[in-house]
Amino acid sequence: MHSLNVELGDRSYPIVIGSQLLGDPQYLLPYIRGRQVCVVTNETVAPLYLERLLEGLSDFDKVDTIELPDGETFKTLDTLNRIFDLLLERRHNRTTTLIALGGGVIGDMTGFAAACYQRGVDFVQVPTTLLAQVDSSVGGKTGVNHPLGKNMIGAFYQPRMVLADMDTLSTLPKRELAAGIAEVIKYGLICDAPFFEWLEGNMPRLLACEPEALAYAVDRCCRDKAAVVAEDERESGRRAILNFGHTFGHAIEAVQGYGSWLHGEAVAAGMVMAAELSSLRGDIDAGLVGRIRALLAAAELPLAAPEGMAVQQFLDAMAVDKKVLDGRLRLVLLRALGTAQIVDDTPRELLVEALRNCGAV
Amino acid sequence: MHSLNVELGDRSYPIVIGSQLLGDPQYLLPYIRGRQVCVVTNETVAPLYLERLLEGLSDFDKVDTIELPDGETFKTLDTLNRIFDLLLERRHNRTTTLIALGGGVIGDMTGFAAACYQRGVDFVQVPTTLLAQVDSSVGGKTGVNHPLGKNMIGAFYQPRMVLADMDTLSTLPKRELAAGIAEVIKYGLICDAPFFEWLEGNMPRLLACEPEALAYAVDRCCRDKAAVVAEDERESGRRAILNFGHTFGHAIEAVQGYGSWLHGEAVAAGMVMAAELSSLRGDIDAGLVGRIRALLAAAELPLAAPEGMAVQQFLDAMAVDKKVLDGRLRLVLLRALGTAQIVDDTPRELLVEALRNCGAV
Repeated sequence: MHSLNVELGDRSYPIVIGSQLLGDPQYLLPYIRGRQVCVVTNETVAPLYLERLLEGLSDFDKVDTIELPDGETFKTLDTLNRIFDLLLERRHNRTTTLIALGGGVIGDMTGFAAACYQRGVDFVQVPTTLLAQVDSSVGGKTGVNHPLGKNMIGAFYQPRMVLADMDTLSTLPKRELAAGIAEVIKYGLICDAPFFEWLEGNMPRLLACEPEALAYAVDRCCRDKAAVVAEDERESGRRAILNFGHTFGHAIEAVQGYGSWLHGEAVAAGMVMAAELSSLRGDIDAGLVGRIRALLAAAELPLAAPEGMAVQQFLDAMAVDKKVLDGRLRLVLLRALGTAQIVDDTPRELLVEALRNCGAV
Repeated sequence: MHSLNVELGDRSYPIVIGSQLLGDPQYLLPYIRGRQVCVVTNETVAPLYLERLLEGLSDFDKVDTIELPDGETFKTLDTLNRIFDLLLERRHNRTTTLIALGGGVIGDMTGFAAACYQRGVDFVQVPTTLLAQVDSSVGGKTGVNHPLGKNMIGAFYQPRMVLADMDTLSTLPKRELAAGIAEVIKYGLICDAPFFEWLEGNMPRLLACEPEALAYAVDRCCRDKAAVVAEDERESGRRAILNFGHTFGHAIEAVQGYGSWLHGEAVAAGMVMAAELSSLRGDIDAGLVGRIRALLAAAELPLAAPEGMAVQQFLDAMAVDKKVLDGRLRLVLLRALGTAQIVDDTPRELLVEALRNCGAV
C-alpha cells in the first residue's frame, strides 16, 4: 500500500493507494466528521462497487445514495441540481459528507456539489478510473461543463481524503485505461523524466493491469502533481503546466462534442501537438517527439486530430479556453524531457504548422 | 464620506460609504485588475443607475451588461446560468470583473457567479438597497435559493471592494427601506447596545432618508459585522449570531413563498420571536422586548407571524434550516441588549409559546 499527504495547510489531506481498500472502513471512517453521508455514483459503477463501499458505512445515521447517468455529457448544472435535490429532500445538513464513487465526472461534480451545498460540506474521493486516480485526486479542481466550454463553472475545493483502490481498474474498459495512461505519461513529460523512462520500460505491465505497477504509477503521478499544486493552489502560475496537451485536447472535445473522444484520448493527441510545436520552435529535437509518439502509440492512444477537424476549428475553440489571458494565447510546451514551460508568444504560423503536422486540415 | 477595511488577510477589501460615489470612477477603478468588466443588474435598478455607473467604465476593452428580472423568486440556478451564458458568449476570461449593481439578490447571485465562473473571477459590489449595504457588503456569503430552502447553494467568496452610495436609497420604496432598517436594528441588538440607543433617537432621520444618518448607520453596521466575520469567516461559531431572527424569518419566507414578504420584514418578525423566546427563558426582561417591538414598529415593520401561519409550519420549516446541526435546533437568542448567544437546548414548549405570543396559530 502506498500513501502520501497533499500538503495544503489546513486543507491538507491523505491519498491512500493500494488493493482491497474499498470494503475496509478503517481507511475512510477517520475522515468523516458527521453522522450523515451521501454516496454519489453512476449507473455503471454502482452495480460493481457500491455495495462493497456501503458495507463499511452502515453505522451512520443517514446513508443516502444517488446514481447519476454515466458520461461527460451529464456533467452539467442540471445533473448537479439532482444532487442538491436529494440532499435537501433527505435533509442533509452542514455536517454531511459526500462520497464520490466513480471516475472524473463523478469526482468533479461531487466535489463541486460539496463546495456549494450550504456553502461547503466535506467530501471524500473514491476514484474508480485511472484518469481520476492520477488526475482528479490532487488539485481540488471541481466543476461542471457549459455548452460553450468545458469546466467553465466550478470551484477549487479540496477533499478530506482520497481512496484509490487499484482493484477497481480491473473492470475498466481498455480504452478508458489507455485514456488514463495518457495523463500518466503527461507527468513524465512535464516534470519527471525518470518516470517517463520507467514508463517506456513498463507499459505492458500497466496495460495488463498489474496492481503493483499501477499503484506505483498512480503514487508517482499524485506526488508529481501534489508538488506542483502545493506551489500554486489556485493556478496563478506554475500549476498551468499541468494543462500540457489540454488546450489542444479541449478544442478537440469541444468540437467533437463531449463524450465522443475520451478526455485522455483528446489529451494524448493534444500532447503530440504540443510536442510538435515545441519541436518547431526549436526547444526539443525531433527524436524526443518520436519517443513521445511511440509511448502514446504503445498505449494505443490517438496521435492526431480527429478525421476532418480543421485548423480553424482549433483556433476558434482555443480562443475561449481558460488559458487565454487578456487576448493572448498561452500554451504549455516542452523545453526538454521532464521540463515544461508556459509560452505566450507563439507565432500563429507555427501553431498552424504544428496542427497540420498532426492531421488537422 | 466613510470608509472601512474588512480585514481578511489576503482577501481584505474596502467599503466606501457616502454620496455621489456612483458616477465617480476613482473609487471603483483601482480594484478592477483586468480589461474586461460585466455589470450584473436588474430591470428595476438599470434605468435608474446603470448609465451613471457605465460612464466611469468606458475605458475598458469589454464592458457588458446583463439585466436580470427583479426579485427573490429569480434567485435561482437558472438565473445564475444566464450570467454564465453571457460571460461565455462574450468570451470573458479569468481576468474579468463582475460588478453587482442592485440589492441583495443581485449581490448574492453575482458573487456566486464570480465564485464559480472559471473557478473564480473578481467581483465588486455596488449595493443599491439599505439591506444590501448593511448585510451583503460584509461576510462573503453568496448563493442562490433552492425550492426546498433559501441560500442552500452558494459559496463564501469576498468582493474586491464595496461601493455604497446613499443617493441610491432615495429611489428605494419605503417598504424596502424599512426592511433594511430591520437588519440595521439587528446589529444594535446582537452586539452594539449604544447603536440600538442611537437608533431609538434617530429613526425619523433614517425614514426620511437623510444621507448623513444613513451613512452613519451603514458604516456602523458594516463595522459591527466586519468585527464578527473577521473572527469567524466560514461560520463555524460566533458568526452564527448574525442569524439573529433569521431562522424564524426563513421559515416565514419558505412557507409564504419567497418574495411575498421582504427578507427584512421576515427578519423583523423573526427578531420579535427570538426576543420573546429569550424573555420566556428568563434571559432578558419583558421591558426590553417592549423596546424592541417599539423600535421595529417605529419603522413600520411587522411584529408577528403572517396571518394564519401555524406553529407546526414554523417547526417543519426550521428543521431544514442550515442552523440545524446533527438534528438539534440551534437558535440565536439574546442574553442582554447588545449581547447574543447561541442556544441548542430550548424546550420545544417554550419555542411553541414564543411562536404563539407572536401570532402563530
